[in-house]
Amino acid sequence: MKNYIQADEWNIIEEGFDPHLNKISESIFSLGNGHMGQRANFEEAYSGETLQGNYVAGVYYPDKTRVGWWKNGYPEYFAKVLNAANWIGIDIVIDGIQLDLSQCKVISFKRVLNMQQGYLERFFVAELSNGNQVSVAAKRFCSIVDEEAGAIRYSITPLNFSGEVKIMPFIDGDVSNYDANYDEKFWDHVDQQAAGLDTYLMLETRKTNFVVCTGSRFAVHQNGQLVAVEAQPILKDKYVASVFTLNLVQGQETVIYKYAANVSSQNYAPEDLPGACKAVIDRVAAKGFETMLQEQADAWQKKWDESDIVIEGDVSAQQGIRFNIFQLSQTYTGKDARLNIGPKGFTGEKYGGSTYWDTEAYCVPFYLATAPQQVTKNLLVYRYNQLGKAIENATKLGFNKGAALYPMVTMNGEECHNEWEITFEEIHRNGAIAYAIFNYIRYTGDQDYLVDYGLEVLIGIARFWKQRVNWSNAKKQYVMLGVTGPNEYENNINNNWYTSTLATWCMGYAIEALNYVKAQAADKCQALLGRLNFNEADETGAWQHIIDNMYYAEDKEHGIYLQQDGFLDKEIIHVKDLDPSQRPLNQKWSWDRILRSCFIKQADVLQGFYFFRDQYDIDTLRRNYNFYEPLTVHESSLSPCIHAILASRLDLADDAYNFYLRTSRLDLDDYNNDTEDGLHITSMAGTWMSVVEGFAGMHVQDDTLKFEPFLPAKWKSFSFNVGFRKNTLNVKIVADGVRITNLSGSALSVNVFDKPVLIEAGAEAFVVR
Amino acid sequence: MKNYIQADEWNIIEEGFDPHLNKISESIFSLGNGHMGQRANFEEAYSGETLQGNYVAGVYYPDKTRVGWWKNGYPEYFAKVLNAANWIGIDIVIDGIQLDLSQCKVISFKRVLNMQQGYLERFFVAELSNGNQVSVAAKRFCSIVDEEAGAIRYSITPLNFSGEVKIMPFIDGDVSNYDANYDEKFWDHVDQQAAGLDTYLMLETRKTNFVVCTGSRFAVHQNGQLVAVEAQPILKDKYVASVFTLNLVQGQETVIYKYAANVSSQNYAPEDLPGACKAVIDRVAAKGFETMLQEQADAWQKKWDESDIVIEGDVSAQQGIRFNIFQLSQTYTGKDARLNIGPKGFTGEKYGGSTYWDTEAYCVPFYLATAPQQVTKNLLVYRYNQLGKAIENATKLGFNKGAALYPMVTMNGEECHNEWEITFEEIHRNGAIAYAIFNYIRYTGDQDYLVDYGLEVLIGIARFWKQRVNWSNAKKQYVMLGVTGPNEYENNINNNWYTSTLATWCMGYAIEALNYVKAQAADKCQALLGRLNFNEADETGAWQHIIDNMYYAEDKEHGIYLQQDGFLDKEIIHVKDLDPSQRPLNQKWSWDRILRSCFIKQADVLQGFYFFRDQYDIDTLRRNYNFYEPLTVHESSLSPCIHAILASRLDLADDAYNFYLRTSRLDLDDYNNDTEDGLHITSMAGTWMSVVEGFAGMHVQDDTLKFEPFLPAKWKSFSFNVGFRKNTLNVKIVADGVRITNLSGSALSVNVFDKPVLIEAGAEAFVVR
Repeated sequence: MKNYIQADEWNIIEEGFDPHLNKISESIFSLGNGHMGQRANFEEAYSGETLQGNYVAGVYYPDKTRVGWWKNGYPEYFAKVLNAANWIGIDIVIDGIQLDLSQCKVISFKRVLNMQQGYLERFFVAELSNGNQVSVAAKRFCSIVDEEAGAIRYSITPLNFSGEVKIMPFIDGDVSNYDANYDEKFWDHVDQQAAGLDTYLMLETRKTNFVVCTGSRFAVHQNGQLVAVEAQPILKDKYVASVFTLNLVQGQETVIYKYAANVSSQNYAPEDLPGACKAVIDRVAAKGFETMLQEQADAWQKKWDESDIVIEGDVSAQQGIRFNIFQLSQTYTGKDARLNIGPKGFTGEKYGGSTYWDTEAYCVPFYLATAPQQVTKNLLVYRYNQLGKAIENATKLGFNKGAALYPMVTMNGEECHNEWEITFEEIHRNGAIAYAIFNYIRYTGDQDYLVDYGLEVLIGIARFWKQRVNWSNAKKQYVMLGVTGPNEYENNINNNWYTSTLATWCMGYAIEALNYVKAQAADKCQALLGRLNFNEADETGAWQHIIDNMYYAEDKEHGIYLQQDGFLDKEIIHVKDLDPSQRPLNQKWSWDRILRSCFIKQADVLQGFYFFRDQYDIDTLRRNYNFYEPLTVHESSLSPCIHAILASRLDLADDAYNFYLRTSRLDLDDYNNDTEDGLHITSMAGTWMSVVEGFAGMHVQDDTLKFEPFLPAKWKSFSFNVGFRKNTLNVKIVADGVRITNLSGSALSVNVFDKPVLIEAGAEAFVVR
Repeated sequence: MKNYIQADEWNIIEEGFDPHLNKISESIFSLGNGHMGQRANFEEAYSGETLQGNYVAGVYYPDKTRVGWWKNGYPEYFAKVLNAANWIGIDIVIDGIQLDLSQCKVISFKRVLNMQQGYLERFFVAELSNGNQVSVAAKRFCSIVDEEAGAIRYSITPLNFSGEVKIMPFIDGDVSNYDANYDEKFWDHVDQQAAGLDTYLMLETRKTNFVVCTGSRFAVHQNGQLVAVEAQPILKDKYVASVFTLNLVQGQETVIYKYAANVSSQNYAPEDLPGACKAVIDRVAAKGFETMLQEQADAWQKKWDESDIVIEGDVSAQQGIRFNIFQLSQTYTGKDARLNIGPKGFTGEKYGGSTYWDTEAYCVPFYLATAPQQVTKNLLVYRYNQLGKAIENATKLGFNKGAALYPMVTMNGEECHNEWEITFEEIHRNGAIAYAIFNYIRYTGDQDYLVDYGLEVLIGIARFWKQRVNWSNAKKQYVMLGVTGPNEYENNINNNWYTSTLATWCMGYAIEALNYVKAQAADKCQALLGRLNFNEADETGAWQHIIDNMYYAEDKEHGIYLQQDGFLDKEIIHVKDLDPSQRPLNQKWSWDRILRSCFIKQADVLQGFYFFRDQYDIDTLRRNYNFYEPLTVHESSLSPCIHAILASRLDLADDAYNFYLRTSRLDLDDYNNDTEDGLHITSMAGTWMSVVEGFAGMHVQDDTLKFEPFLPAKWKSFSFNVGFRKNTLNVKIVADGVRITNLSGSALSVNVFDKPVLIEAGAEAFVVR
């Protein structure tokens, strides 16, 4: 756990330069705009420790490293998120000495991520080996208005000398992934060009053949005046630069503006890429840096209006929650149904692929409440569009008749994870995808989604579950053998309660959806069922038989559901009684020891209580929470939020607050010593859930938005904006109650502390605790 | 399944050249001598499909290919058996045309593996593109007398022309492994030399720094006369050759003799290797090819005297069993306690590492009965010498106080397998190592082994088991969670009956061994226990408590032991009812489907009945056999032999014979379509077991060798030699009884059909059925 980020409500601030923290800061200060993003690498050369990262959404490489023990049914490849061409580079050589913070004395250093306006700034004063001191201010952003563009303002001021500077803005595509085996390179050179102030580099990914054209244009100002420079091109393999020389005068600022664009073959024909790239550059360069920055700030203001959470009385918590919201908003904008939310977003290359069940289980609630409906819908349509691949995937594993198994990890719908206990067995992901449909409709009321998209997906999923269970002659019930639940510290277990519960729920919801669509859109329904060769009586009959005869592991003595068969054969030890030196278990214990132990990585039975809140009474929840929570090590960043929400329901305010703390500053404080690999993007949505669904107790029941809030003891108040159907509300929780302001043009009836509250358009209501 | 090998009692014969079969034949016709070995690659160039393989025992490379999801406790590396320098190469260019069977017309071709005398011959007539026909006869062997040496006689006769031949004997170390990732090379050049008729190449393995010096000397004869040739050296990176030119006269034979040696830094200081290599070459070249060959034949005769099985009335079965014995004898000679029996021997690179539990469970019985006692003892001492590493290995996984877990796969005692469900969970291997000690002593009577080696190993193993079980509050018994049994089609299961049974047996045997050593060698025992910090009362008390309170899964209704908890929740289907197109399951089904199914890869519960024959009555065996056998797919080559032995006990003669058939010609007939990767060396010992322990019903009880034989219906008789303690017996089973000849100088009392039979030295006894 580190503690070097300065507390501030709107900014992430690092003061002073510690090379050992650099990779962590590179992650924390990352920028992104949904289309592209990058780690906070330096513009100028840096020979110290760094993890270079430039990413273009949806561009990946199918790694096929052979490992010894391939299993039949394993995917063809493991998708690697690719480090792409570095477009921020500006090499600076002053009087023959390269500016490199690793090779000079850093007199002062400050890095600021302005979350309110969406840009990164860096200031430093460096003393070169010849005693020359130079002051640098660099500001940059990935535009959320012009999503294919980024811009940099890089300013140099000589403090104690005048001299000559060689400036070399470059695009470097000769990059590799940190996690590449044998330093394999993933990009091939296609084309390059350098003419005057413009440079272009076109690269193609090996095997996947994504073509990305990266272009840049620069402009130089001295004394606030544009300077005409004579730039010489430098062309090397997968590298293009311009180089020019200027005189620096002591105390006078030289500013380089660099406008860059990344366009990819996902959106253009390859042959059109150079033209498209130039068009983007022309457009943004014509706007100029300051205009772009103003547009950026305005656009971010709109995002904050939808999604901000304001905490009074705790700057650190305020900074933490805004950081989470900011990074989520940088990662996914919902504009492109081909994209999804990678667990590291644009901040690192760890975890191949972009899409996990994190999206459905953790991110959907955030986007539902804080973004236009279309954003979440696009996340759902992403899976709808990949239904064919999910059916293919299930077929590969031996299922048939249209059964669909969505992949554990994917880029394009194809599975690209290859650990059998996950790939083949962590199938609850399939249920999360069905649940997201339910959740989306429950929240938005968009029942039509079932007609056009939802039902088809639900049928594929229900067909899978039907085939995945089997009748046990010993139990005279259906069982589900060989699964891995959300608690990945158990593998290949039988009758995981969460998975079995989710499976029968899916089948029930599919029947319900079928009946709805039949009633509402009989013709479409008929056509769909025909296309799916759906035998209604047989198939729904089989589903219902399973629903009615499913075995669920439970222990009557403790009054709990059992995570799996045989769970009580384990030695039951509470986490609090574990030697702290043994934590985290996944770094200290061998895998078999973890598996044999009772310790739970993340909410599993309790995930079911979160999803199916209405199905279990509070005493059942309490018994299960009291049994499982003490066994949970929360070694997934996705775990504490669920516990925070359930603890909130159980009036365990301190517990809830403590769980929240574990995620809200997870990356800012490098809680798990792994921030340098990138940020935990999807768990950031969980942090938001902790506050809104936990502390504020927000949930939807019977088409009504409900709140059962409490105020953490350390806070004076917290408030957030939330969209619900056609309304936007501001909800503020203070010590003695809740004030809800209806920011929209129509009245809305909500429910607070179990009482209905009608709030007229533009009005506010205060409900006393 | 192929059927191209000609039936012959002593020879393996391939006639005619089919390039599609070449890789299979390269495996089948492999040569080895315990120290080095090679696939049956051609001496001359071959541009067709081939798997090049030259192997030096004990030389490996620690592959560290990074894969995505490393688990804590995984080994540092996966050992690859290395393809080493090719020393057989003799390039032939006739009138400017390279002799290459892939590029010319093959008029005739014959390959013979002479098992009786231990050499490989090849004859062919080839027509080159210019119409020249040449006849070639190549004979070679790896000497079992001079184990660091091999020799080749390569003869060329022009049939329809006279001309010029360029001959280039070479050593090529620029080789790679077929299974190398990214074509990584594993050898670095150290030194080379070519002078006159001698060439030397010294290479070093990357990372492991094994140095191997390969040398060769050639001699050329024409018309039976030594010819002086002026050879020019060719030195390239990791390659050394001599080249010379001769005139060929139509109808006259030119013979090249090539003597080669492989010496390695395992046996010499690296700086001494060139000298050592030259000394070997000097020695064998002085003997000359024919003398070496005669010595080879004599030495093989001795091996056959100890180990032959003669089958009358079935040439194909005869050839099969001799092939198995021959390959086993080529693989392991028992002279070097640092070596072991790789599953592919010297015939391929598949499966890293050299040592699996195959050695203890399947190979020990073969070597016990057919080789001097020291051979098996060295296999045991191998594990004794690695006890320290086994304790380290267990420590890495969280065990302590001297608990030892032997690796699943190893070269030098370090684990080098990285699948958690095997590495961490297939721990029954630890029991097989204890069982081998018991088995060795039961067979040889060498109780002293316990004093000097055995007890220490047994204590380490018992300590492991003690820590590996836990008390179940639910069951009020000890349970063993999270294991994989011999049936690897189940992973991470609870209470695998075989593993639990073996574990408590180990603890019981450790107590017994301790009491023996205490009584027989009190001082040594005291010293050992002191060194091991052994608290006798506590430790043996704990072991006994586990022995007395262990939970064994069973099903009273069926009267069977359960392979694991919950086995009867599976859908029970017999293999005979499986669609044959679905076999083999491991190629047709995804892993989860295999795991969920009831199908058994290899004997698991039944392996326990094999090991602990005396503990269960025949009815219990029958019930378990009848339940499990129909579920067993035998997709391990180690499975049928156990079933053959148990079927023999149950008087299921046809079943026993059919199981035997599945392994005896497994490789000769390429039964599983995988012979091209190499031979199934360790399962060959199982074939021997099928005959001797199965058909002949040989076993040891109360220090007595017992036989309960039957004669397979298709056979006229079968007989074999077997050593037992100080005696050698020839046992011949005919239709109406058994004739046992005592070939040794002292009387021996054996037991046949449950009756004691005393056989005087040199006498024979016939026992009527």
